[in-house]
Amino acid sequence: MKQVIKLNILILGSNIDGTRIADEINHLQLKATNHFIRDEANISDQELADVDIILGWDKPVVTKILAMPNAKLKWIQAYSAGVDYYPLQQLAKRNVLLSNVSGIHAEPISENVLGMILSFYRGIHTAATHQSSGQWTIPDHQLETIAGKKMVIFGTGHIGSRIAQLAAAFNLSITGVNHSGHPVKDFPATISIDALDSQPVREADIIVNTMPLTAQTTGFFNHSFFDLVDNQPLFVTIGRGPSTVTADLVLALQNHQLGGAALDVTDPEPLPSTSPLWQMPNVIITPHISGLYQNYFKDAINIFAENLKQFETDGTLKRNEVNLSAGY
Amino acid sequence: MKQVIKLNILILGSNIDGTRIADEINHLQLKATNHFIRDEANISDQELADVDIILGWDKPVVTKILAMPNAKLKWIQAYSAGVDYYPLQQLAKRNVLLSNVSGIHAEPISENVLGMILSFYRGIHTAATHQSSGQWTIPDHQLETIAGKKMVIFGTGHIGSRIAQLAAAFNLSITGVNHSGHPVKDFPATISIDALDSQPVREADIIVNTMPLTAQTTGFFNHSFFDLVDNQPLFVTIGRGPSTVTADLVLALQNHQLGGAALDVTDPEPLPSTSPLWQMPNVIITPHISGLYQNYFKDAINIFAENLKQFETDGTLKRNEVNLSAGY
Repeated sequence: MKQVIKLNILILGSNIDGTRIADEINHLQLKATNHFIRDEANISDQELADVDIILGWDKPVVTKILAMPNAKLKWIQAYSAGVDYYPLQQLAKRNVLLSNVSGIHAEPISENVLGMILSFYRGIHTAATHQSSGQWTIPDHQLETIAGKKMVIFGTGHIGSRIAQLAAAFNLSITGVNHSGHPVKDFPATISIDALDSQPVREADIIVNTMPLTAQTTGFFNHSFFDLVDNQPLFVTIGRGPSTVTADLVLALQNHQLGGAALDVTDPEPLPSTSPLWQMPNVIITPHISGLYQNYFKDAINIFAENLKQFETDGTLKRNEVNLSAGY
Repeated sequence: MKQVIKLNILILGSNIDGTRIADEINHLQLKATNHFIRDEANISDQELADVDIILGWDKPVVTKILAMPNAKLKWIQAYSAGVDYYPLQQLAKRNVLLSNVSGIHAEPISENVLGMILSFYRGIHTAATHQSSGQWTIPDHQLETIAGKKMVIFGTGHIGSRIAQLAAAFNLSITGVNHSGHPVKDFPATISIDALDSQPVREADIIVNTMPLTAQTTGFFNHSFFDLVDNQPLFVTIGRGPSTVTADLVLALQNHQLGGAALDVTDPEPLPSTSPLWQMPNVIITPHISGLYQNYFKDAINIFAENLKQFETDGTLKRNEVNLSAGY
């Protein structure tokens, strides 16, 4: 007879819709043999120490558990793709596995990237800013099709690849940027991140940042980077805010090194209302929403469920395990 | 030796950038054997009567020429795709050919259609309306991917087909509507415009109007049409404003028969600043700009040049001749 393992699973995250998670967990019948804990504020230290698995994030709770010498914690499943806010070194030291939900954001984020690019080039953003005052105002800048534009995508993972697929349908020419410049399906060309001073970057009309936040990518899009571009590109970022040096971005826009910017992530977030970016007509700002979509919880919990099944069997994860030293 | 025909070609249109047209005409070396007339205000009646070809539109001038019994006018090349504003019956009666520039708008307009749809579903329009006040505000409605949505496209010509191609890349399911329901490449399914009370229309998430303005399409999108839809679709129109009964559209939005609207054309244009449409958060309005793009004049003049070459040879047009009784 198969041994029944009972795992203590702590669900964290005050911003997370607990009812929907509970619905999904019930739907997947994950409760059968496990003990789900939801009210982290009222559980004892002993119960915290006995937690095997965490679903989500709450800084004080995770910090407290990791400080306990007798903590049983073995695995954390994040709700996000980027896991830069988790204490990766500590998790590595304590042999705690970490998994993300990378992949589920590819479709919604890619839709936002194309939507922002089209809004920028096709006069839709300009019209939206005039709409509340009831102004039928033809834009005073030339509208351009995105067909034929040259796009450079930083990051050739799930999100970058899906953006490349969609951009190809619009007849953009696409170059991907990754560590080594290795070829990736959906990218007609790729270059290494160490070879930035090259024709694709210099001639880019559109630059898209999809990179995770790591030591290497923090502050990556700074004045040195913006000095490389010759064609006043639109800079689109949906990765993490701190990959871009905000002050340098503002300057590059003011200097017309960039033709515009479309920002779903900023540093800091929320972007302060005093930031000059808000008032620039060639800047589109969305409040870190590009990954949201109707099936987010369902798809995230499905990844958790697949991993839980494997974890119950042999203590490993089936998918989306984060390399704790690489940070993604 | 080939006979050299000298044609009198009148260039009309105060809104048209005359310098750019002159540049394109020079570039195409169309001037060699023909007489181009630009200053219509200062030419004599005799000169008007001797005009063989008109490029563009100016109501008083065209009206005056068509009223002349001795007018030589044989062909008008329009700068637009829709030619509803030309006196089609009179042209037919006088045996004047009319050609449009249908086809060149397919790419820019399709980009706007996808851009508006993505702006609507992905929170980009909502964010744009908050931007000038520096508000980092997460939308209070559920963001949805457009992937998987059901789209019904009215009109299966150049524009409808290109929209269908792009929508397919985003994994929408697509039904086209045309006169007979005949199959058209790029449309997985088509229905007849006489079979509207059908599943595709009832279940549509997105309805797109690309139809030309004719007697049949004037007022087509009215309360009877909006009564057919069950799924609170987004109504997108880039055809002509009078295809939609504005008062009925407003009501359908207020009644929640429609989930939203994205309007590049309105009736009237400009849309009065007092229209309630401007202030509806689920309505996107652009000022009839979706057909504009960087190569508009070049591509329009190219069509004129191809037609002129043919016309010089045998008095017929090579492409884009309008069926004067159908109206497109």
